[in-house]
Amino acid sequence: MAQRRAMAKAITLLESTRADHRAQGDELLTALLPRTGRAFRLGLSGVPGVGKSTFIEALGLHLIGQGQRVAVLTIDPSSTVSGGSILGDKTRMERLSMDERAFIRPSPSGGTLGGVAEKTREALLVCEAAGYDVVIVETVGVGQSETAVAGMTDCFALLQLPNAGDDLQAIKKGVMEIADLVVINKADIDADAATRARAMITSALRLLGQHGRPEHAAHDATHWHPTVLQLSALKAQGIAAFWAEVQRFRQVQSANGELAARRQRQAKAWMWERIDAGLKQRFREHPAVRAALADTTTQVLDGRLPASTAARQLLALFD
Amino acid sequence: MAQRRAMAKAITLLESTRADHRAQGDELLTALLPRTGRAFRLGLSGVPGVGKSTFIEALGLHLIGQGQRVAVLTIDPSSTVSGGSILGDKTRMERLSMDERAFIRPSPSGGTLGGVAEKTREALLVCEAAGYDVVIVETVGVGQSETAVAGMTDCFALLQLPNAGDDLQAIKKGVMEIADLVVINKADIDADAATRARAMITSALRLLGQHGRPEHAAHDATHWHPTVLQLSALKAQGIAAFWAEVQRFRQVQSANGELAARRQRQAKAWMWERIDAGLKQRFREHPAVRAALADTTTQVLDGRLPASTAARQLLALFD
Repeated sequence: MAQRRAMAKAITLLESTRADHRAQGDELLTALLPRTGRAFRLGLSGVPGVGKSTFIEALGLHLIGQGQRVAVLTIDPSSTVSGGSILGDKTRMERLSMDERAFIRPSPSGGTLGGVAEKTREALLVCEAAGYDVVIVETVGVGQSETAVAGMTDCFALLQLPNAGDDLQAIKKGVMEIADLVVINKADIDADAATRARAMITSALRLLGQHGRPEHAAHDATHWHPTVLQLSALKAQGIAAFWAEVQRFRQVQSANGELAARRQRQAKAWMWERIDAGLKQRFREHPAVRAALADTTTQVLDGRLPASTAARQLLALFD
Repeated sequence: MAQRRAMAKAITLLESTRADHRAQGDELLTALLPRTGRAFRLGLSGVPGVGKSTFIEALGLHLIGQGQRVAVLTIDPSSTVSGGSILGDKTRMERLSMDERAFIRPSPSGGTLGGVAEKTREALLVCEAAGYDVVIVETVGVGQSETAVAGMTDCFALLQLPNAGDDLQAIKKGVMEIADLVVINKADIDADAATRARAMITSALRLLGQHGRPEHAAHDATHWHPTVLQLSALKAQGIAAFWAEVQRFRQVQSANGELAARRQRQAKAWMWERIDAGLKQRFREHPAVRAALADTTTQVLDGRLPASTAARQLLALFD
């Protein structure tokens, strides 16, 4: 309990935008870093109503039953707009939140998705340093938050309803393409629909894989090929099979070096994402740019100034 | 002929990276700008082998037959890597390239896709100022160049083969979603396959539209809903019907204000894209950043420095 309070306090410090807090936060993170990296990072997404909370509760209790400690973090894209969260309610996972081997943290609020993602990445490091074995990062399937979650986890699982329109939507948004596992939840309600959905998603994944990853042969056991599972989170059916599949993923990806390579790519991309955001913020806040930006933009919109010339003029003001 | 030579010369000036040429280029563009904007800008994409050149030749000759002047520009993503172009050969459109009412310009080469797109946008303005009625910007469907082309044209048409895997690929890459028109070429070879492909794409577009653009009612005549056409470019069948559909698109989008709004959004996005690229270039070239970047990146990759802390440290060096 005392540890969970300390973690909550550390995460609150990292979420602060005050400059002195930020400096303390950077020191804290750097100190924690050698103790991070040992947890398995599981990303989870799915549209509202797919049953994410029920699934996480069932999975979390399963893992705790195995003696593991589980942390759950949330990225709620709606919280970046409203400052409030549609997901952050602990009561969504009633039994899990009461268990002292679990740590549940609602979505950071305010700021851009990039800012919220940064705070969640840092919270993830705090959970790892505190010795949690599995960190689950969940997001609702609206906006671009799935890409952010896939970009900070070892394995990204997509929860789907047994429903064809849902598949197409996931393919369209590019979410299917980044999924390592696809889970059809509520498979007990309509077994036929679930079986059809599984066949459709399996063939879609095969086609996506063929085109998108030509370097991987179809029957190459040393590379992971996304798989589709059916389960019922509400009845806690299929949870053990899901976790077994995650373990198989971890084993394949460790053996071929992809787990470590993915974390390195993520860290580098994270660094550049924050650099880009910082550069843009500085540019917008530069006095000469601020003075000229509105008028220059109007000239571009009115067709009086070519956009590329406008960009060069504004960049010349930024020194 | 003299005008085409002058245009080619102006575009070459705009493609130059020399600082004095760039300054002259900015002056030239600003001077031309009041005479731009009157052409219709048609974007065109499709995988290699779909018959883009044959289609552009047939369409170009059709438009010239109507007394219109046609310019064809190309964005070849391969040219950004190799410096050479897989598309830029005028002999691909033999009859069109010999007609003096047509102007064909191969892809600019070298640099990033963003840089190549910038040069193409500027070449487009030169063509407009020279009084061309229709400017076609084509790209091969590999890489992210489709988004660049859709981002600089009034109407984006996607050429497809009568083949189901091709559809899924386009949906996956998000290209189907940005298409205003989908054209099934080579429909004469297998009429059944073409009919099936048309039905599949139509239903995919309907589903994509339902989810992605909830504000548009399905039967709202004041908004454009993407349509699917079949044709045979090789036999010049269906070309007139295609152009009639483009005219209908233009009429709907002019009446509801979307044509003008889209150009404004494009100009603003273009300006910010160039600002971002400029900021990043300046950052990378800054002496203190250059001196520290490799070592800082290594520390991030080795897990010795948190990525967000690394970003803040590098940004602090950039002044």
